[in-house]
Formats: sequence, C-alpha cells, structure tokens
Amino acid sequence: MKNQAVNATRDRVTIRDVAQDAGVSVAAVSKVLRNAYGVSEVLRTKVETSIEKLNYRPSVAARAMRGRTRTVGVLVVELSNPFLAGVIEEANATLAENGFKALIGIGRSTSPIEASMIESMIDNRMDGVLIIAPRISGKVLERYARQIPIVVIAHHEPHAQTYDTVNSDDRQGATLAVEAALRCGYTDIAMLGYELADSPPTIVTLQREWGYLDGMKAAGLGARIIRLPLVGTDRRAAIDDFLSLRDRPRAVFVWSDLDAVPLINAARMSGIRVPEDLAIIGYDNSPMAAMPLVGLTSVDQNAAELGRTAAEILLGRIDGREEARHLLIEPHVELRGST
Amino acid sequence: MKNQAVNATRDRVTIRDVAQDAGVSVAAVSKVLRNAYGVSEVLRTKVETSIEKLNYRPSVAARAMRGRTRTVGVLVVELSNPFLAGVIEEANATLAENGFKALIGIGRSTSPIEASMIESMIDNRMDGVLIIAPRISGKVLERYARQIPIVVIAHHEPHAQTYDTVNSDDRQGATLAVEAALRCGYTDIAMLGYELADSPPTIVTLQREWGYLDGMKAAGLGARIIRLPLVGTDRRAAIDDFLSLRDRPRAVFVWSDLDAVPLINAARMSGIRVPEDLAIIGYDNSPMAAMPLVGLTSVDQNAAELGRTAAEILLGRIDGREEARHLLIEPHVELRGST
Repeated sequence: MKNQAVNATRDRVTIRDVAQDAGVSVAAVSKVLRNAYGVSEVLRTKVETSIEKLNYRPSVAARAMRGRTRTVGVLVVELSNPFLAGVIEEANATLAENGFKALIGIGRSTSPIEASMIESMIDNRMDGVLIIAPRISGKVLERYARQIPIVVIAHHEPHAQTYDTVNSDDRQGATLAVEAALRCGYTDIAMLGYELADSPPTIVTLQREWGYLDGMKAAGLGARIIRLPLVGTDRRAAIDDFLSLRDRPRAVFVWSDLDAVPLINAARMSGIRVPEDLAIIGYDNSPMAAMPLVGLTSVDQNAAELGRTAAEILLGRIDGREEARHLLIEPHVELRGST
Repeated sequence: MKNQAVNATRDRVTIRDVAQDAGVSVAAVSKVLRNAYGVSEVLRTKVETSIEKLNYRPSVAARAMRGRTRTVGVLVVELSNPFLAGVIEEANATLAENGFKALIGIGRSTSPIEASMIESMIDNRMDGVLIIAPRISGKVLERYARQIPIVVIAHHEPHAQTYDTVNSDDRQGATLAVEAALRCGYTDIAMLGYELADSPPTIVTLQREWGYLDGMKAAGLGARIIRLPLVGTDRRAAIDDFLSLRDRPRAVFVWSDLDAVPLINAARMSGIRVPEDLAIIGYDNSPMAAMPLVGLTSVDQNAAELGRTAAEILLGRIDGREEARHLLIEPHVELRGST
C-alpha cells in the first residue's frame, strides 16, 4: 500500500480501458487476469488481445492490495560470467534471510527478451525486480518502475528517479588500476577496451575508460585506448594482433578478466613474459585470475557486497520507500604476479 | 488436460478438505488461492493455515484447466559451478525457442530450501520444473511429480515412474577416463573422490566411482580410491596431503574439475611436474581446464546437449506424455597436456 504514490501517473492504462477495448465487463477482465476457473477460450483471447494492445499491467497499488508473494525476480544478462554468479548468489542469500525467494531470468543481452522477462515478473506478481547489467534503456526501465519496485546493478544512471541503482565505482576502480601500475614503475600504460558503438551510455565499460583517462591525466601521462571487437565475438585474432603490435605498451589495463585471462594465456603461451615483457591488470578478480598458474592482478568489485546491498535496498523499496537511491561500492586492486 | 492421469492418486488433499478444515466455503478458499481482490486478512490467515497443515497443492489437472503460463521453473544447486551455468543457459535457450520462459531458483544444496522452491514454482503455476543436481530424495520428488511435470538432471534414478531423468553417463565417463590414462601408458591410476557418507545414492559421484572401478577391473589392475573431505569444505590441506603421499599414484582421475583444477595448480606450484611426475584427469571440462596455462585433460559431459535434451523432454511431459523417460548422454574425454 505504501507504494501507491510511486505510480500515480495520469496516463496509466486501467482495467476499465481493457474491458472497454475488449467489449466485456471489468469483472470478466479480472477473471482472466486471475486466471480463474471456467474462463472460456474466446473470452481469454479477447481480453489478452486488448491487454497486449494497450500494454496493460496491474498497478503496484493493486498488486499490494492482493498481498505479497515474497518472491523477487532477478534478471541477469547471462550466467556464465562468474562475477555475475557471485552477485546473484549473495543477493539470493540476503533475500532468503529476509524470507524472500529469488527467481532468476536470463536476458541474453537482448532488450526485447529483457523487457518480456520483466513483464513476466510483473505478471507473476513478484514483489520487486533486481536487474543486473541490462541492455535495456533507462527510459524503458522507468516505465516498468512505475509498476514494480526495481533496483539495477551495473547500470550507471545516478539521476534516475523511479528506480535505484547499485554499482561498483567503476570509474574509481580503473583509476586504482592505473595507480597500481604506476606504483610498480610502469608509465607506458594502455587500456584494452572493446567497441562501444552499439552500447548504451550507462554501461560500466565507459566508466572504466573515464577512470583510466583520469588516472593517466593525474599522472601527466598520455593515454591510449585500444579497442577489441564487440563482446561475444571471437577475439583471439584481435588479442594476437595486440600482442604483436610493434609499439606494444609496457603495461595494459584490460576492461575485464573476460579478456584479460585469454590475454595472459596467449602472452605466456607465445613466450611473452608477464610481467617482465608485458604487465597486465584485469577487472573483476574472477576465479581464473586468482588461480596460482594465472596470477592476474585484477580490480575486485566486491560482488558479495554489490549483491547484498542491492537486495537490501530492493527490500527497502518493497517496504515503501519512494525516493531513489544510487549507491557506489568501493572497489580495490588485488595485486598478483602479473604486475 | 492430458496430464490428468498422472496424478490420479486417491489420497490427494482437495480444495474441499481445505475448506472443511478452515471452516469456510470452497469459493472462499478459491479466492485466497487466486489471491483475489478484497480477501480479508482473517480469511487469508485461516485458509493459509489449513493449506499449510494439510500440505495442499492444486492438482496438475486443475492447473491445466486454468491455462498454461508458458513458464518453466529451473531449480539448481548453485550458480558458481560453470558446468551448471552451461546446462542452464542451453535449457533456457531451448525453452525460449519453444515460447517458454525459464525462471531459475537456487537450492543451495539444502533439501528444505529445494522443497520450498519447488512448492513456490507449483504455487506460481509454472508449467513444469527442471531440477539440476538436487539434494532432495527421489521419494520427495515423486510426491511433487504428482503435482507438476518434472525432469531431473544429474540425479541417477532410472526406475522413477513419475518423473524423467537426463544424465551424463557418469559411469561410462569415468571408465573412459581410466582408458585414456591406460592408453598414455599409466597403470598406477588412483581416483580422487570425496566423502560420500552424507550423500544420497543418486549422486553422480557414486556412478563415477563405479565407472573407475569398472575400468581398472577390465584392465586387471588394482583400484584405489582416495577421499577428500566433503565438497564445500576447505580442502587445500587435503590436496597438499595427497601430493606429499609417499606412495602417491603415478596418475590420478579426479571426480570433478572443482578439485582437479586446484590440484594441478598446487602440484605445479610446488614443483611437481604434470604429467611427468603426476598425470591428472578431471571431470566436467570446465573453462579453467581448457585454459592453455592449465591444460587439464577432462571428461566432457556435453553440458549443452544435457540442457537441450532435458528441456525437450520436459516440454514433452508438459504436452501430456505420462510414461517416464530416463536418458543418458554420452560423454567424451578432452585430451590435454596434463596426461
């Protein structure tokens, strides 16, 4: 009930609009919505067509009136990134401690799938949604946030009014990486990123580029960002190209361990000594980076604190808080043999 | 509707039993079940108490009458094991191709949490449940399978009548590992497992022990199983103990990469050459095993085929198939430098 004010928008589609469009009674729409016994296929089809057409969703207030389900939806881009798995497992544990179950959907880095997942979670009357590294725009999130409490991780949008964000301070993390390289005595420090053309401005990688530029500028050094192909494409050739650059930098800060781990493997396997010939710093402090045989210095985002904090502020929003909160978690550098 | 016969058990608790126990009408129970508007807290509490007490769940038939949700629940022991993430991502993709959404819950290797997750999925009117590596017993699964179509992965119970199983042929996989070691010329081949005292007989590791014993017996060689502490406990000391055994075997087949990867790291870091001093074969062909710097020979379970097959047979069950199916997926050995 406390959430009512959140979605007091005038242009909301109501159950009455759906009934009118379908040419049936409000009670009939309600029956279909409840998935009640004895609804005919004809009625269901009529109503569902109108719901689809008008993009109708029951309001948060109406949902609250029907009681909590104590279920929270978690929407994540993919599961095979161990950093994301760590965030989810901690969020799941925090929700469980508070008597909430988490149900996780995979967005596959596609806006339409993400949108349809969020809609499913709303339709399944979940109490809130935790979204991790979405492809979807802030504008679209804004629309869903009128219908369900939302907290977003790894999406920098500090002025969003209707949903909360929890991020690692990616900009600071990249600066810390540069500072760590400087302390090891390197000055010729490049950054390895990826093509951002297709990316929304809210992604973490942009923050990391800014943080890298901050760190190089503060040290009075020239910056150089080298870009790999888009994430998800085969980049082995591009990594080999980087390694055989005639003006290869002395040290490289890689935007993520997803590329830094293959890089350190390729370097060592082709006889380039790390760190003697090339120092490497990654980002995410993944289990692979921590392996003794790899020993990759990497920025740790504190996945556990990210997951726990996001779950906690989602619970606060479910409990009725309306003003948006935007939190940054402090990262640190885990020093290993690669620098 | 086609699923009706599956749950035609006589001792089923019906909505009438709940109404009688709560001292309210059947219509009132139905209202609470549907989470309908305007249900008083008093009524809700009464009905929910009786539902809890009698362990009532709406039947599959009743659920089918209310129409499909085109949502499938996936219950998995944990997310941080990359093999499991691979199975889920492929199952998710197969379900999506068929117009079904997957919502994933984490069981945390605890029977009560797993049970409560399955109940949530039933209560959320999901069309079926895919369960991966459950801690829960076959007996309990049997009970839930009367209420919702269930397919289980990594749970060997080939005579289950009410649910399907899809497994890697773990027994064959372990025999293949022994045969690969034999072909490399090793005869002193031990297996590294873990304490099974607390484990249900349906777990994959037991199958792998049998397969190892099969392989050694067929070769006319003596078998030797060395057991690490329970999974989830810190086993570094136990791994070091194994490496400093006076009668350390010449080759070792490790039940999972979860232990084989730390073993190959510990061996190489302490100056034991792999494979010159110790040959190592893992299980799961994890991304870490495949890293050039690790190069661990490992049995590949074909996570993608497991996930795809499980999703397909779950869809078949949702479509009305009633006779149980129990499928084994063929594994293969991925040879690398560690042997």
